[in-house]
Amino acid sequence: MLALVNGPRLEVRAFEARPGEATIRLDLGGICATDLELIKGYMGFEGVLGHEWVGTVESAPDPGWVGRRVVGEINCPCRVCATCRAGRGNHCPSRTVLGILGRDGAFAERLCLPLANLHAVPDGVPDESAVFAEPLAAACRIVEQVHVGPGLRVVVLGAGRLGQLCARVLALTGAEVTAVNRSPAKLERLGPGIRSALIEEAPRGVDVVVACTGAADGLALATELVRPGGTIVLKTTVQEPTGVDPTRWVIDEIRVVASRCGPFGPALRLLERGLVQPEALIDARLPLSEGVGALERAAAPDTLKVVLDPSA
Amino acid sequence: MLALVNGPRLEVRAFEARPGEATIRLDLGGICATDLELIKGYMGFEGVLGHEWVGTVESAPDPGWVGRRVVGEINCPCRVCATCRAGRGNHCPSRTVLGILGRDGAFAERLCLPLANLHAVPDGVPDESAVFAEPLAAACRIVEQVHVGPGLRVVVLGAGRLGQLCARVLALTGAEVTAVNRSPAKLERLGPGIRSALIEEAPRGVDVVVACTGAADGLALATELVRPGGTIVLKTTVQEPTGVDPTRWVIDEIRVVASRCGPFGPALRLLERGLVQPEALIDARLPLSEGVGALERAAAPDTLKVVLDPSA
Repeated sequence: MLALVNGPRLEVRAFEARPGEATIRLDLGGICATDLELIKGYMGFEGVLGHEWVGTVESAPDPGWVGRRVVGEINCPCRVCATCRAGRGNHCPSRTVLGILGRDGAFAERLCLPLANLHAVPDGVPDESAVFAEPLAAACRIVEQVHVGPGLRVVVLGAGRLGQLCARVLALTGAEVTAVNRSPAKLERLGPGIRSALIEEAPRGVDVVVACTGAADGLALATELVRPGGTIVLKTTVQEPTGVDPTRWVIDEIRVVASRCGPFGPALRLLERGLVQPEALIDARLPLSEGVGALERAAAPDTLKVVLDPSA
Repeated sequence: MLALVNGPRLEVRAFEARPGEATIRLDLGGICATDLELIKGYMGFEGVLGHEWVGTVESAPDPGWVGRRVVGEINCPCRVCATCRAGRGNHCPSRTVLGILGRDGAFAERLCLPLANLHAVPDGVPDESAVFAEPLAAACRIVEQVHVGPGLRVVVLGAGRLGQLCARVLALTGAEVTAVNRSPAKLERLGPGIRSALIEEAPRGVDVVVACTGAADGLALATELVRPGGTIVLKTTVQEPTGVDPTRWVIDEIRVVASRCGPFGPALRLLERGLVQPEALIDARLPLSEGVGALERAAAPDTLKVVLDPSA
C-alpha cells in the first residue's frame, strides 16, 4: 500500500503495514503542526506520519466493527502498568502513539489500531468534520483540566489549526473569548461569538490564556496577558522557551496547566450537534500520493487545515 | 529608633518611622531567604527590611488592640480596586508589601501596619513560634491551591527555611512526604513523620513536587521528579530558570502552580495546637543592633532561622 513515510527521507512510497487488531481504510487524514515538527526531527520519529484521520474498518476481531466509519484515540497504552491501572493510560510509560511514537500513523491507505481506541462516527457527521475529532478532543481537554465558565475572560493565543478549535470549544462555556494572532488572515476564520485581536491590541489581565502559538515565545507572551492568580494553558510543544520568568509566576501566583490529548466522546458530540463546525477550516484537499507537497502546503503562512484523500 | 535599613548601603541606623494606622513594638523578627535576595538587589527595594515578625501594639485607632501581641499580613492592598473587590487583595496592583515593596519593614524597634492586617497571637504561642506565622502561612497557601491528601506522594525539594515548614504542613494531610536536599545537615532538622533523601536518591514519579530550593535549577529538577499528570508547586522566586523544558510539561501534562503568601488564621491555629513546632528551626538569636551580621549568619550554609531581638 501507499504511505507518507518520514525518514530516512520524507516520501510517499509503498509500505507494508504491520498487522494490528483492527485494520482501517483511510477515508481522510488531517495534517497537524506536530506533523510539521516531526519532519524536522521532533521526537526522532521514523515511520508513517499522521494521527488525525477518519476511516472505515476493514477487518477486526469483533465483526460488529467491520464496515463502520471510525475515528481513533492515538495513544496505545499497555493497559496493565500502574499508570494505566490508575486511569492515566494516555501517560503510560510504554505507550505507543499513532504516527508520533513507535507506531505507524494514518497517512496510508490502511492503518492499524487496537479496537479499544476506536470511536464510531455518528451518521450525521461528514468525513470533513470527523477528521477534526482528534484535535477537537485536544481542545476539549482544556475544559477537563481547567474550570472555564461564564464571567471569565479568556485569550486564545494563536489562531492556527489548534487555536481555532480551542477558541470554538471555550466560547461554548459562555466565557468572553478573544483569539489573538500576529497576522489578521487567520482571525477572519474564527467561529461565531469569538472576538479577535492582533497581538499588539490583545486584552490584558485576563483570567485564562491558552497558548497555542506554535512558537517558543508563546509562554512569555501568555505571562504578559494573564491576570495575577490566573491560568495559562500550555498547548504548544516548544523546543526551547524564551523569556519565561518564573519569578513573575510566583509573585502573581500564576498557574500553568500543560495540556495534550483529550476525550473523543465529547468531541464527537460537539460535531454531531453542530456546536463546532470545523469543515470551513479546510484549505486544501490533496491526494495521498501528493503527501510531501501537502505538508509543504500546510507549512505555508495563513494555511489552516490540509487534508489527504487516498481516493482522490 | 534603630532599624536595619537596605540601601544605599546596608546598615543598622537611626530611622524615623513613617506614621501608620497601628504602631507595633517589635518583639522578634525572622530573617527569610527573600531578605537575602533583597540585599542583593531583588525588587530594587530600599528601606527597612523584614516581613517575618511578632510584636506588641503600642498605639492604634481601636484601643482594644493596644497591648496585644500580634503578627501581621505583609500585603497592604488598596481595598477599592477591581482586584481587591474580587477578593484578591494580595494581588492588588497598587499594594505595598512590608519590607519588600514600597513600605518599611519589621526589622526596627517599631513598625506600622493597617489594623486590618493584624492577627492576635493566642496566649499559648510563644514569640519564638509566632515569629514563624508569616512563612507558615505561605506553606499553608500550598494546600489552599492544590488538593494534597492521603495516598499522594509528595517531594519537598529544598529543606531550607521554607521547605522545612512546607514539609511539616504537607505531612499533616496524610500524604507521604519526602524532603529532598543537596546536603544532609538540614535533613536532620525535619519534623516527625517526614522522610528524607539526598537529591541523588530522591523518589521519582511523585504526585506533587514543591520547589523551594532557592536555586534557579529547582524547576528543572522538579520536572524530573514529578509524575505525568502531576503538579509542581513553585515557591522559590528565581531570577532565571535553567534547563526548563515546557515541551516535557505538555507531553506529560504537568501542572505548575506558583504560590506566594498565605492565610495567617490557619497558620496560627497550627501553632496553637502544636501541630507545627517551628521553634527548633531557630539557629541564632541576635540583637537588632547586629542586624548586618545576622543577615550574614543567615546566609551561611546549613543555617536555618536567624531571629532578631531588639531587647537583647
